[in-house]
Amino acid sequence: MRPLRRLIQLDEAIGLALCEAVEGKRTEVVQLLDASGRVVAEDIVSEIEVPPFSRSAMDGYAVRAKDTYGAARLKPVSLRLREKIYAGAIPKKAIAKSECSEIATGAMLPKGSDAVVMVEDTERHEGEVLVSEAVHPGQNVSKKGEDISKGTPVVSKGELLNPSKVGAVAALGRKSVKVYARPLVGVVPTGNEIAELGRSLRPGQVYNINSYTLAAVVTSNGGDVRKLDIVDDSLEELERVVRDNADCDMLVFSGGSSVGEKDIMLDVLERNGRVIFHGVAIKPGKPTLFGVVGKQLMFGMPGYPTACLSNAYVLLAPVLRKMARLPSKSPQAVTARMAKRIVSTTGRTQFLTVKLVGDVAHPAFKESGAITSMAFADGYVVIPADVDMLEKDEAVEVFLL
Amino acid sequence: MRPLRRLIQLDEAIGLALCEAVEGKRTEVVQLLDASGRVVAEDIVSEIEVPPFSRSAMDGYAVRAKDTYGAARLKPVSLRLREKIYAGAIPKKAIAKSECSEIATGAMLPKGSDAVVMVEDTERHEGEVLVSEAVHPGQNVSKKGEDISKGTPVVSKGELLNPSKVGAVAALGRKSVKVYARPLVGVVPTGNEIAELGRSLRPGQVYNINSYTLAAVVTSNGGDVRKLDIVDDSLEELERVVRDNADCDMLVFSGGSSVGEKDIMLDVLERNGRVIFHGVAIKPGKPTLFGVVGKQLMFGMPGYPTACLSNAYVLLAPVLRKMARLPSKSPQAVTARMAKRIVSTTGRTQFLTVKLVGDVAHPAFKESGAITSMAFADGYVVIPADVDMLEKDEAVEVFLL
Repeated sequence: MRPLRRLIQLDEAIGLALCEAVEGKRTEVVQLLDASGRVVAEDIVSEIEVPPFSRSAMDGYAVRAKDTYGAARLKPVSLRLREKIYAGAIPKKAIAKSECSEIATGAMLPKGSDAVVMVEDTERHEGEVLVSEAVHPGQNVSKKGEDISKGTPVVSKGELLNPSKVGAVAALGRKSVKVYARPLVGVVPTGNEIAELGRSLRPGQVYNINSYTLAAVVTSNGGDVRKLDIVDDSLEELERVVRDNADCDMLVFSGGSSVGEKDIMLDVLERNGRVIFHGVAIKPGKPTLFGVVGKQLMFGMPGYPTACLSNAYVLLAPVLRKMARLPSKSPQAVTARMAKRIVSTTGRTQFLTVKLVGDVAHPAFKESGAITSMAFADGYVVIPADVDMLEKDEAVEVFLL
Repeated sequence: MRPLRRLIQLDEAIGLALCEAVEGKRTEVVQLLDASGRVVAEDIVSEIEVPPFSRSAMDGYAVRAKDTYGAARLKPVSLRLREKIYAGAIPKKAIAKSECSEIATGAMLPKGSDAVVMVEDTERHEGEVLVSEAVHPGQNVSKKGEDISKGTPVVSKGELLNPSKVGAVAALGRKSVKVYARPLVGVVPTGNEIAELGRSLRPGQVYNINSYTLAAVVTSNGGDVRKLDIVDDSLEELERVVRDNADCDMLVFSGGSSVGEKDIMLDVLERNGRVIFHGVAIKPGKPTLFGVVGKQLMFGMPGYPTACLSNAYVLLAPVLRKMARLPSKSPQAVTARMAKRIVSTTGRTQFLTVKLVGDVAHPAFKESGAITSMAFADGYVVIPADVDMLEKDEAVEVFLL
């Protein structure tokens, strides 16, 4: 059996992995309706004025502001009503001295007018409108180009589209947008002991858990998943998978990165690429392997479900987010106090899963082979490498799962 | 023109809308690979033991624990090696007194053995293994059913599937899972002044922004979007849309909820269902209308893009999350200080969009008709109804967009 190389600290592992991760360059065009949450791959500059015309910001009367000067509740100004202008319609009549037109919110301002008096500040008598508040030029008017003027950069390459930025692109009349493609991540379970879901188990086998947990983490961190078949832990088979999936931006193997005699992911990396690290000072998940083959990143995750998944959270997710050009994201956290004293190994960062009862954190970790160490937990506490004990009642930050 | 009814406070509006929202009952079956983030609609109880056999948690030697008692570095116990057991294989030989078998992590424990000695605590001499550490029964062994025993409830109806819960379902061998269907939300822009993206604008028209911003909010809060065509602001047309889309769980109209003469969503609700509220004491977004027609919820959002979108965040999102059975979610927040004094109207909750420069929040709000009031902002500050001023340098919580 082969020993791990020198264990490196988690921060160093994250740093090394981030160094190898390259921001994705592939782009694709998506419908604007599907664009929220995607990263724009073009600079979008407005070719139009938004709004394309000066419009009323209120329901009221379009006026020449100077005709209203001096108007007051007890001394209203009388204006002659010309027409009614609906939103979407074109005003037929211009406004001359002492004239006005009724106007709806969003409707185009008629020629000659430069302000809108709110309906609340008027009184109507047949063809006459009494204005009891003066307005200044531009009041209650959204000027042509005031929202977005022609030539304004609306979104820039690399920006993440949130709902309002999607709205700004829509304001320009664009139906689709060029975005960066989501990195493609091949997920490969290895080992003769792994059986696919829906099949019956042979003696000695357990079901494939890691493809499903890894896929969930990949999808929620900006990646697309290619779920690959379970492969035997043989050099030939693993090399075939690497060859056949050279179009993936990342391959994540689970199982086969430990120190067992049959764990040969290390050989695959050494023969076909470079090992960046093998062995991280974290618990669970120590035997994690990371390297590159050509332009592909390779993770060799421990086969044990909780070790595999917690490493996916702390190592794979930040690397994938960089490739997907997404901002880094910390999980939601709450403060709690420990239900009991916890002893930790100094020199290794520990991910202690906990169940929250009120604000008390009860350890939920069974062993790294048990998926219920995480599935029955509410979150996890990170115990730094230089801390050897959490006291009962000690305040801890719990990162929610 | 018709006045708004009495304005109600935002909290009251949210409360009334949540009262009308019913947790969805429709279910569907999805592949486990796509199940993360979905809400389970069945109680899943394990029908198997996980692991289905006692297995080694380490690379090492399967032993009878009592054979190792008294073993020490200077006084190792010698055991006769029987075979090598790989993960996924079936042990051929039972372990009798003073015997052991080499065993890989995850491999099935041979009959007769009850513990595993770590490889680090052994030395090998041909057919003989020297054990230098005693183990107790069960040590370094994951017992059959230890992770999930037969009959254990693994996930319950109504639980949100996160990656680890997906993993627990996978552990049972389940390929698919019954989940609650995402509520279907019809999004309907109204008004003659609205033009669909990709078309050229006629004079007096602006592009359809709200369908896209609303769709983004709906999708990220557990709903599916049915994007409907722009409809004229006529009673007939709006009633036709309501009739034709009776299968939607919610219809969201934008435009047509203000006080203008042509705004007839109110009539649609009064004739076909019930108005729950019309007019909320918020800025922007005052004229928002909410009601029910049959089992459908109806939102009449203001047509102005920023008013429409901020109302979608504060009113539509919580209602939709309840229908989708998702936990409520607060946006990520950071603390900042105001770049300048801001005066607010007492009696109305104000959503002030801001641009962050370091930890200084600069007001970014132009007007509710300008999508860039939000698209060029980083977040928003909520000024409560009973606060009339934020001082320069005052600490504020900024909710990120």
